[in-house]
Amino acid sequence: MDYQQILNEIYAKVQPCLTRGKVADYIPELSHVPQSKFGMALVTHGGEVFEVGDAAEPFSIQSISKLFTLTLAMRLEGNGIWDRIGREPSGTAFNSLVQLEYENGIPRNPFINAGAIVVTDLILSHLDNAHETVLDFIRELSGNKTIQFNRDIVRSEKATGYRNVALANFIKSFGNLRNAPEAVLDAYFHHCSIAMTCTDVARAGLFLANAGRSPSTGSEIVRPNQAKHIKSLMLTCGTYDAVGDFAYRVGLPGKSGVGGGILAVMPGQFSVCVWSPGLNQSGNSLAGTMALEWLTTQTEVSIF
Amino acid sequence: MDYQQILNEIYAKVQPCLTRGKVADYIPELSHVPQSKFGMALVTHGGEVFEVGDAAEPFSIQSISKLFTLTLAMRLEGNGIWDRIGREPSGTAFNSLVQLEYENGIPRNPFINAGAIVVTDLILSHLDNAHETVLDFIRELSGNKTIQFNRDIVRSEKATGYRNVALANFIKSFGNLRNAPEAVLDAYFHHCSIAMTCTDVARAGLFLANAGRSPSTGSEIVRPNQAKHIKSLMLTCGTYDAVGDFAYRVGLPGKSGVGGGILAVMPGQFSVCVWSPGLNQSGNSLAGTMALEWLTTQTEVSIF
Amino acid sequence: MDYQQILNEIYAKVQPCLTRGKVADYIPELSHVPQSKFGMALVTHGGEVFEVGDAAEPFSIQSISKLFTLTLAMRLEGNGIWDRIGREPSGTAFNSLVQLEYENGIPRNPFINAGAIVVTDLILSHLDNAHETVLDFIRELSGNKTIQFNRDIVRSEKATGYRNVALANFIKSFGNLRNAPEAVLDAYFHHCSIAMTCTDVARAGLFLANAGRSPSTGSEIVRPNQAKHIKSLMLTCGTYDAVGDFAYRVGLPGKSGVGGGILAVMPGQFSVCVWSPGLNQSGNSLAGTMALEWLTTQTEVSIF
Amino acid sequence: MDYQQILNEIYAKVQPCLTRGKVADYIPELSHVPQSKFGMALVTHGGEVFEVGDAAEPFSIQSISKLFTLTLAMRLEGNGIWDRIGREPSGTAFNSLVQLEYENGIPRNPFINAGAIVVTDLILSHLDNAHETVLDFIRELSGNKTIQFNRDIVRSEKATGYRNVALANFIKSFGNLRNAPEAVLDAYFHHCSIAMTCTDVARAGLFLANAGRSPSTGSEIVRPNQAKHIKSLMLTCGTYDAVGDFAYRVGLPGKSGVGGGILAVMPGQFSVCVWSPGLNQSGNSLAGTMALEWLTTQTEVSIF
Repeated sequence: MDYQQILNEIYAKVQPCLTRGKVADYIPELSHVPQSKFGMALVTHGGEVFEVGDAAEPFSIQSISKLFTLTLAMRLEGNGIWDRIGREPSGTAFNSLVQLEYENGIPRNPFINAGAIVVTDLILSHLDNAHETVLDFIRELSGNKTIQFNRDIVRSEKATGYRNVALANFIKSFGNLRNAPEAVLDAYFHHCSIAMTCTDVARAGLFLANAGRSPSTGSEIVRPNQAKHIKSLMLTCGTYDAVGDFAYRVGLPGKSGVGGGILAVMPGQFSVCVWSPGLNQSGNSLAGTMALEWLTTQTEVSIF
Repeated sequence: MDYQQILNEIYAKVQPCLTRGKVADYIPELSHVPQSKFGMALVTHGGEVFEVGDAAEPFSIQSISKLFTLTLAMRLEGNGIWDRIGREPSGTAFNSLVQLEYENGIPRNPFINAGAIVVTDLILSHLDNAHETVLDFIRELSGNKTIQFNRDIVRSEKATGYRNVALANFIKSFGNLRNAPEAVLDAYFHHCSIAMTCTDVARAGLFLANAGRSPSTGSEIVRPNQAKHIKSLMLTCGTYDAVGDFAYRVGLPGKSGVGGGILAVMPGQFSVCVWSPGLNQSGNSLAGTMALEWLTTQTEVSIF
Repeated sequence: MDYQQILNEIYAKVQPCLTRGKVADYIPELSHVPQSKFGMALVTHGGEVFEVGDAAEPFSIQSISKLFTLTLAMRLEGNGIWDRIGREPSGTAFNSLVQLEYENGIPRNPFINAGAIVVTDLILSHLDNAHETVLDFIRELSGNKTIQFNRDIVRSEKATGYRNVALANFIKSFGNLRNAPEAVLDAYFHHCSIAMTCTDVARAGLFLANAGRSPSTGSEIVRPNQAKHIKSLMLTCGTYDAVGDFAYRVGLPGKSGVGGGILAVMPGQFSVCVWSPGLNQSGNSLAGTMALEWLTTQTEVSIF
Repeated sequence: MDYQQILNEIYAKVQPCLTRGKVADYIPELSHVPQSKFGMALVTHGGEVFEVGDAAEPFSIQSISKLFTLTLAMRLEGNGIWDRIGREPSGTAFNSLVQLEYENGIPRNPFINAGAIVVTDLILSHLDNAHETVLDFIRELSGNKTIQFNRDIVRSEKATGYRNVALANFIKSFGNLRNAPEAVLDAYFHHCSIAMTCTDVARAGLFLANAGRSPSTGSEIVRPNQAKHIKSLMLTCGTYDAVGDFAYRVGLPGKSGVGGGILAVMPGQFSVCVWSPGLNQSGNSLAGTMALEWLTTQTEVSIF
């Protein structure tokens, strides 16, 4: 399969779509990213890397970090995490408090904000420097030791993230946080702020295309059935309240972030990351979703 | 009407009910109050005072303070407050976030927590020392300069009031708070902590039985139609999600608090406060509601 | 008090408002009523009648019938009805199914559609010809034996009232209807279709201004405390999801219908009915609500 | 792979679990099925059939029919169906009306009752004898011309299916049904009542494991990308409000019914149907879900 050729075609094809999305403005820092950006990187199981456009430019991974914190929490606690978080699609917005009230502070899944806040609390109960450990873990997964937090994003989140403060305190009021809400939020905001390139993200996700094992180092990140579990969660809960649409159109497990990045994996074949900051109504990258749809149409790959 | 005789009869009659309610435990400090307490004070339009039981013992007024902060906000802003708060019963729990999410941060009415937090924010925009001003206003209304905050209650609320922190930050995320959530909550927790006796509260509410004017001093607290408005809000929104039941059984405008106090007024006749810490399922004083029901049955007064 | 003078002034004053509301179109038959209609009739405790405008023209009472079916059900079953219906404001639209689902088929109060359907079911369990009995009861209350069902409205409701069919079957699915949904709906649609003049309605409601007893015949319709209970329900639940606003502005217990009629009572003084088909956003007569607000402002009467 | 050996092992292993579920009793006819029943049939891409237990005993397919009606509707209307039905998981119970009210009568997906009712309406707009056509289609897919409706189930549904009557009328009230609710429900109840064996169902679903084409006849049932779409909908919406859990544990696209049947497909390899009437809390066959989990664990197949 000539992946480079396909990426080049996708790059040409998405150009007219780049202006149609809406750059996230819920925190001021994110809104400054130019809408015209588009990058895509595909890393095969065998380690080959294909890139196009702005694939080497770091962007704010935002909710893609939820995938890595979940992975870390599964390593630390195994199935114990499901006592405090569900694994069902929420059917509501990613930052909704409604369901949390009806369900007594148990978030629906680890990929909505509420769930990732509980995951962060779990990690924090094991580790003092949760956010440093998460950063180290991501550096290790992607093989890039220069990955950093974006401190401006952290500050911006802290200054304006009232909704997340509400979520953390709401969960705490139900007794489902062990640590102080401020400490959990500090770590959570750091995770979301991590800046990575498409190639970094695709590399970091490759263990999911290889039954939980890093193809380059051969080390086991998670056990094979845990990798399967994570991918099932990506498919049913990974792309906000558009999981059905994403599965329908793309047909791969994916995890998106409001920074405009999406990571998707094809088991046994490749890991791919696309980035374009203009979002569709569901909060997923508009051009990014199209690019992945074209990729799976062109390559005729799909888990279905 | 021999009010003293009626109060005495009520006092005898409620004794077996005092053990049936449940003392509020959502903040630790409140849970220490003995369940056996019962006090009642009735102040007539003409200034006569009738008391029974623990009517002279200070208790935590909690949400009854919402009546006084609303009154103060109406003095400061008039009808402007209705741009930021509704005046309909919520149909849901007093600390619910669900409705707030569906209605974009506009609280249903000034007597649920969310509404009182916005009222406090309104006052804070006028006054630096909002909580001192509220305390002074309550002292003036009740004619008792010794009324104080209970600092232990304030501390207890601050240490454990995650739900209210969630509410304030949630409202802020919708842009319906002008001040910092911490500052608003500090004032709000102070208001709730104020300790008053039944007689203090009944005296403080007497202006509502007298078309907005203090019968003792003759000064106008609010205009006559504002007094009417406040009473209509008490009737439709003053007793948590049991307003229908309270109107049905008692038939007077009332405002309750989880400290176990209830203030009710009969226009043109009297203001009455009852206190008993055991609550019913709706969060209103169980014995207190019964006492008011017997009072209106016995005296055959009702606004209906 | 020169009521005629006041009604005349109101009549002049509402003219410019008549075009501002929206005539109900949820059933085709109702939408044909000219928006310019306005009638008002006030009947005093002593039996004097004051009328203005279209007060003698019959209109479709719609949900005002819920007041009369509730009264009849209270006569038949007393407090037993509260096992199957709540008495709290719903906080949601009059035809909502959401709350019913969360609360397992127990309607919030007898004045929303769901509640009135259960009330109708209760009556039907006592009487074979429920709708004839209700019609007879209303004729007796108003002293007008010519009052009729509007068969076109019944047909129109039956042909298009899918929402009410949904409600009745939903309640039945929870086991809170004893009779077949079709039979209950047939009676319910008949009740809503009854055509009365403002004067008829005001006369029919006069027992509520007289502690449950008909001033003209002296017969007891309901016991005094039942009359008080009905009025408390009108105040907290009688005007759709605008009860707070109605209490605030009008300050009287009232019951409205989407035909544009509103009945309100001032205990000990009068019963008044206003009719104007243009509705406000809450489904209450726009000009009718204004007229009642002016009436209470002008006469300075209010239960508060 | 020795499928027969694996099925035999599963059969032995599930025996102690058969008593732990709860046989559906929402319609009386279903509740008579013995809880001890367990059957499983696996049909490979190449046409080999493996059976165990009660695999040859017909059971009520109930919601599994939604898969076949959706397939038929996609053949008739293509992507036009998505104008009237969503394709997202609902996050709420399969027969909930709440979401339908918030989303104005557009069902979340074709696999909840509301969605299947709209699908049935779509088919009915094309065909007079919708239910006969659906039966013929299922007979053709499974290669079994003796498959029948269970008329007792149809009668039982009609006599007691108030919730579905409510759903259909509710959708109609929003204008999202073209035909009369009674006609749509008649067809819908017939579809649900179809009785098939595990082997019938597995055979009928085999086209989904073969990119939309029947492996035996070679005829195209749906286009390849439509087959992919159907499977993505099964994964995200096919097993009531336990789709996340099912994807997590089983890792295959599946569709369940309250009769206790579940159909699952492994693209390129096999179609499998399991039946056991005891349901878990989510309404999926308890032993059936376990059996599929063991199957995918044992064979190490999964789409992830």
